[in-house]
Amino acid sequence: MSSVRPLPPFAGPAPASLDRWLLSAVARRVGAGRLRYALGPHAVGAAEPVATVRFADRRALLGLLREPEVAFGDSYADGRIEIEGDLLAAVEDASRAYEGRRPGLWSWLSLVARHRPARARENVHKHYDLGNAFYAEWLDRALVYTCAYFEAPGQSLEDAQEAKLDLVCRKLALQPGERVFEAGCGWGGLALHMARRYGVRVTACNLSREQVAFARARARAEGLDAAVEFREADYREVEGTYDAFVSVGMLEHVGRRSYPELARVIDRCLPKGCGRGLLHFIGRDRPRPLNAWIRRRIFPGAYPPTLDEVVGGVLRPAGVVVADVENLRRHYALTLDHWRRRYERAVAAGRVGFDERFRRAWRLYLAGSEAAFATGWLELFQVVFTRRGDDSLPWTRAAFYADGPR
Amino acid sequence: MSSVRPLPPFAGPAPASLDRWLLSAVARRVGAGRLRYALGPHAVGAAEPVATVRFADRRALLGLLREPEVAFGDSYADGRIEIEGDLLAAVEDASRAYEGRRPGLWSWLSLVARHRPARARENVHKHYDLGNAFYAEWLDRALVYTCAYFEAPGQSLEDAQEAKLDLVCRKLALQPGERVFEAGCGWGGLALHMARRYGVRVTACNLSREQVAFARARARAEGLDAAVEFREADYREVEGTYDAFVSVGMLEHVGRRSYPELARVIDRCLPKGCGRGLLHFIGRDRPRPLNAWIRRRIFPGAYPPTLDEVVGGVLRPAGVVVADVENLRRHYALTLDHWRRRYERAVAAGRVGFDERFRRAWRLYLAGSEAAFATGWLELFQVVFTRRGDDSLPWTRAAFYADGPR
Repeated sequence: MSSVRPLPPFAGPAPASLDRWLLSAVARRVGAGRLRYALGPHAVGAAEPVATVRFADRRALLGLLREPEVAFGDSYADGRIEIEGDLLAAVEDASRAYEGRRPGLWSWLSLVARHRPARARENVHKHYDLGNAFYAEWLDRALVYTCAYFEAPGQSLEDAQEAKLDLVCRKLALQPGERVFEAGCGWGGLALHMARRYGVRVTACNLSREQVAFARARARAEGLDAAVEFREADYREVEGTYDAFVSVGMLEHVGRRSYPELARVIDRCLPKGCGRGLLHFIGRDRPRPLNAWIRRRIFPGAYPPTLDEVVGGVLRPAGVVVADVENLRRHYALTLDHWRRRYERAVAAGRVGFDERFRRAWRLYLAGSEAAFATGWLELFQVVFTRRGDDSLPWTRAAFYADGPR
Repeated sequence: MSSVRPLPPFAGPAPASLDRWLLSAVARRVGAGRLRYALGPHAVGAAEPVATVRFADRRALLGLLREPEVAFGDSYADGRIEIEGDLLAAVEDASRAYEGRRPGLWSWLSLVARHRPARARENVHKHYDLGNAFYAEWLDRALVYTCAYFEAPGQSLEDAQEAKLDLVCRKLALQPGERVFEAGCGWGGLALHMARRYGVRVTACNLSREQVAFARARARAEGLDAAVEFREADYREVEGTYDAFVSVGMLEHVGRRSYPELARVIDRCLPKGCGRGLLHFIGRDRPRPLNAWIRRRIFPGAYPPTLDEVVGGVLRPAGVVVADVENLRRHYALTLDHWRRRYERAVAAGRVGFDERFRRAWRLYLAGSEAAFATGWLELFQVVFTRRGDDSLPWTRAAFYADGPR
């Protein structure tokens, strides 16, 4: 292609096999697994591949050598990389092959930027203000954009999101009349569920203007606007004390440098000597940055923490103790499977706007995320905590699994 | 008393009020809470105390100023400190008053001794080889000397220990024919339950000769000696691979310096890419040494870790991921309440041997432990883990709470 700069001469393989040599280098860098890498007539890798990664030009190949994660995503979105075969199987296999490798220094350096409210706002707008209509095409009807809880694998996404909201309420042992603070409330699904089913009063905050407007409209339509207050605000602006603190899908957007601030917010929100809360977040088993492409193009500033980073960095400084942890990794893989299928149907039906580049990027993001949870590259932790010595949670967890909302 | 060295003259209070001044110093050092401290005619502290700590002599008072934890325990055992009122209420209150204070440097220094197998053996003998008859007086009939799981607070201790053994098996999703390694098996209660109810083959190790002999006899009596092998061995001597690793009540006896070794044992026990396990241990919400008296006189070498110390120090190096954490703190307080009442009945009936000093020390240990769990000074964590990406655990935890053993 015309945009490829001429390569300097080098004493390596003969020019005829240059593309083949580059393909081998990519396979070594990214990890071949059961994939095949192809450019023009050349191909290397698995003899019976689950999928073939086909490069349109040498530039796409060179990009992968320089910065594999970002270049793969960008080139796929641009159409300069095609996956011949099953996209999901390809990214799962690539995840497995790639996961043993160490993150580069630059991956870590990019995490040290402070998460000031202004930056947090900008990060949130990039992802969550794409338009409610876009998300409505592939999320459930309550627009819950976090891991669902499938009581059985065959349950519908609608029911599984409802079950998730209810599981969170049960884990928090919410009682009528209690006050709850929700940090990062999305389109308001959990806040409204808590008020509707458990009779609690909720203060919920979110930096996304579109989401807050939508949530407020839902509260009004349901007559819950006296019970739920949606604030377009950073969670750090919270005032007052609450019986419970809850945050579903926000922690992974809070930079590690902001953990002490989050800890102070939790500590400030809860009374001394009592109170409880729940953090639901995407995590890792080892401290590593998120895939660089996802972080740069999809979720600016995101970092999935390890459980020990959260226990030592957030909960202990907040003066609270772990009561319960559940890893819902497989539930997130299944949630993403539902989202991806709905998304692809919407794309096929021409109901997803934006340009082809955006649509391909989103396809890769959903498939890549599903693969990450399926393989254990990412985890999903629900952590319940209490003040030390607080006895307000149910005597056993059997209460979480009893029939019907309490 | 004759052993008290004469005090140097000092410019403080007049000699007449010396005892009173020392009492006030003790109240400041230990924390007054709702306690009263008394020596002879003098008393300081709460006006309406939950209990009065009465010192027999000035030496007992001075000991508390020098090394409060050890001196309190030793003086109580010696009868030079008496608790007038409810012992449990007194130690609970003292726990609450004392807990804000920082541990001294010496508390930490005493933890650095390496846990070599020889030392581990010696530590175990001190506590667990007191004689099966002694423990049989106050444990349940299966001699399970770890936190029970009360399906409801009114359940009997016998049933609650059975429920605990079964909960562990359910959390591990044991399947007939699987192989399980148990590190630290006590009198064999869990190993036998796993073999009897779940049809698995168990290799269990324990350093206590008396416990191993007892466990082997039980296995023979039940015809389970082909299914369960009890080894008088350190857990680090394990060979072979297993479908599951389980350890109930051992981790708190493993010094922090030995966590890398424990991690290697877990990693070695499980196949690559699959396998699961459970650690049940006394923990803390903050890294602090155990009460110095308990550590010195009751459980040499014990250290209750924080959850993040276990996740980062044992599980991650072992190559496994947290699937589930349950904090059973309140269940341990209730278990200890049962043990303490049984123990006091046995003492009152003259069925506990040893001397008065031992019996008083044990009384304080049981009451102090109950207080520690009741107040949140100690926690009890059950942590289930798997190899990354292992999908062999039940789809939801509801399976743990279904009726009957599976």
